Amino acid sequence: MSGQESTEFDPTEHPHRRFNPLIGKHVLVSPHRTKRPWKGQTEAPVLAQLPKYDAECYLCPGNTRSGGIQNPKYQDTYVFDNDFPALLSSPLPTQRTSSEPPNPMFTSSPVRGQCKVICYHPRHDLTLARMEVDDIVSVIDGWKGIYIEEGSMLRESSSSEGHVQIFENRGSMMGASAPHPHGQVWTTSYVPDEPATELHHLATYSPPSTPPASHPRGLDGKPHLLLSYAAEEVERKERVVELDESGWVAVVPFWAVWPFEILLLPYKRQIPSILQLTPEEQEGLARIMKKVLVRYDNLFSCPFPYSMGLHQAPLPPIDPTKEVAQTHFHFYPPLLRSASVRKFLVGFEMMGEVQRDLTAEQAATRLRDVSEVHYAEKVGVDQ
Amino acid sequence: MSGQESTEFDPTEHPHRRFNPLIGKHVLVSPHRTKRPWKGQTEAPVLAQLPKYDAECYLCPGNTRSGGIQNPKYQDTYVFDNDFPALLSSPLPTQRTSSEPPNPMFTSSPVRGQCKVICYHPRHDLTLARMEVDDIVSVIDGWKGIYIEEGSMLRESSSSEGHVQIFENRGSMMGASAPHPHGQVWTTSYVPDEPATELHHLATYSPPSTPPASHPRGLDGKPHLLLSYAAEEVERKERVVELDESGWVAVVPFWAVWPFEILLLPYKRQIPSILQLTPEEQEGLARIMKKVLVRYDNLFSCPFPYSMGLHQAPLPPIDPTKEVAQTHFHFYPPLLRSASVRKFLVGFEMMGEVQRDLTAEQAATRLRDVSEVHYAEKVGVDQ
Ligand SMILES: [Zn+2]
Ligand SMILES: [Zn+2]
Repeated sequence: MSGQESTEFDPTEHPHRRFNPLIGKHVLVSPHRTKRPWKGQTEAPVLAQLPKYDAECYLCPGNTRSGGIQNPKYQDTYVFDNDFPALLSSPLPTQRTSSEPPNPMFTSSPVRGQCKVICYHPRHDLTLARMEVDDIVSVIDGWKGIYIEEGSMLRESSSSEGHVQIFENRGSMMGASAPHPHGQVWTTSYVPDEPATELHHLATYSPPSTPPASHPRGLDGKPHLLLSYAAEEVERKERVVELDESGWVAVVPFWAVWPFEILLLPYKRQIPSILQLTPEEQEGLARIMKKVLVRYDNLFSCPFPYSMGLHQAPLPPIDPTKEVAQTHFHFYPPLLRSASVRKFLVGFEMMGEVQRDLTAEQAATRLRDVSEVHYAEKVGVDQ
Repeated sequence: MSGQESTEFDPTEHPHRRFNPLIGKHVLVSPHRTKRPWKGQTEAPVLAQLPKYDAECYLCPGNTRSGGIQNPKYQDTYVFDNDFPALLSSPLPTQRTSSEPPNPMFTSSPVRGQCKVICYHPRHDLTLARMEVDDIVSVIDGWKGIYIEEGSMLRESSSSEGHVQIFENRGSMMGASAPHPHGQVWTTSYVPDEPATELHHLATYSPPSTPPASHPRGLDGKPHLLLSYAAEEVERKERVVELDESGWVAVVPFWAVWPFEILLLPYKRQIPSILQLTPEEQEGLARIMKKVLVRYDNLFSCPFPYSMGLHQAPLPPIDPTKEVAQTHFHFYPPLLRSASVRKFLVGFEMMGEVQRDLTAEQAATRLRDVSEVHYAEKVGVDQ
């Protein structure tokens, strides 16, 4: 330290750019804009007392959906085909052959796939944050079932690699159509841009120096970007929100875009897909998901809106030992300062690059500082 | 045509993927979801009668902003430094030198820049759509002034290439803080991801075959991606919304993500930045911008929200004849079916890839079908 402190780069003070090696993009960070004292949440806790069953909900057991189909009186999870799917499972139409070379400016190709809905629980008023760990284990079983089934569907009819995108939109701010706990699964006869970009960066990762022996290696014995990253985050601690000894860590990633974005990933070994989870890992995953989501809800004492997604190996599953994929979950919540103040991804962020004020380290600290007990239980809302 | 029509790929019927050669990404298109008849707009026209001057508006002439600074009684455009900038113009802090190789998973670098606001007009109740063409010509002059000035600022202090991002967020849905007509300019000591990606694809464009002699060439005499694209769109017509003989075309691009996204670009010659506009081109640009924005407002009879951004050559301007950049504007409006139904970019779109139902061709048809006269003038709202 010299007398130059005032002009030495300090990422907690100075505008800077961070690099996301998983997708090869940057984020502009403006920490000088968060110098004002953190005002905390000033709104009253959101205690919407939802009924355990809602006759108007198209997802509740026994109710009839808009297409006229009646839901069974399911007791556990319930999977059905989306009544208004963005993808169709019918065979691919044929493309007219042309003698002209393809025009790179007007390239389109037919795709196929399937859109499913998975109800997490029969009870209308629950959320993943307030479900039992065992119930979340059942949800993961439901995801496994769909992943296997969709793999067969694609194998039957395609030679190409496909993808199963498991995700959840929670809250009307994220376009969710109903509060009933549920997620979606879209299968595509190709690997979409986001996971394809990640897989490309995982496959081409080359560390600048040999990682320490304490960092686990990938299934091929080589350094693995996401395993080395998770190991470093566990050591550095400052961005860790939750850690589960079964081998999972939840961090606000160094390159987070959303204010309270979380990356949930294994830190002990490479797990190409949820099919390779041990029972202990699956239970640990359920446990850490619940803990993360309780912290989210407690941050502004509201049902925290988010999009959550699972990235794993493409379909149909090939030899898992040859996979570069590492199972991980992204949580992208839009809230910024309270239950009603959201981040807008507009203007410079659309035209230039994504930007944030709060640093990832500040966000992780805030998430660690809230209670581990759900706010609705504290104020005595009946379960 | 054989008897196989039912299974021959038809992009107006079948789910497909389109490729965006400007950024190397795809969009999933689900046209089968728009088979239902177009319901048009069912809400009453939005006729918010704003005052010509609002004492509470921080952008109106003569008013005092939150920082305590008083706006002059400006008559034309007015440019000032953002009171709460995401970037600072102070000299770059120095980075501690390290003996260790840089860690690709924790890479950050200090950046500098500047954030400015440009009021388009002293009148609180106007928008670009309702301003006179001459007044929009003045706005473009304002942009030119900032571009030159920011270039000098960067040249003085940096050796690296920078970027001037001119943009506008319009409407509270896009996070705009005030209805007063205004835009923003963020200058950065680097080229942000979006324009950098575009410039990379422009620089590496290699057409699969020699384009027709009727397609204009770039300044280097070679085929240019955006010039060939614009020339093809002018010929094909189906995605063209407006065309100005001075050399501008507004299209819903083949690879549009937002329902009524528009790309406004030159089709006659390469124009690296707005500094190279002829007076005729500048006036034509003002004219076509106004026409596009009138169509937007008329689509749902409301002040159409959008983010608009200008991409052009990086800073400091080097020899324009060696530039690959082509001046163009992106318009990203969030509305889908009415003044209140917006598209959410969530779930699969965040985790997989962007998706749309309405095709670019359908969107262009709807924009062409609305009146050229602003709805507020039709119902006799006084200017
Ligand atoms: Zn991922
Ligand atoms: Zn662009």
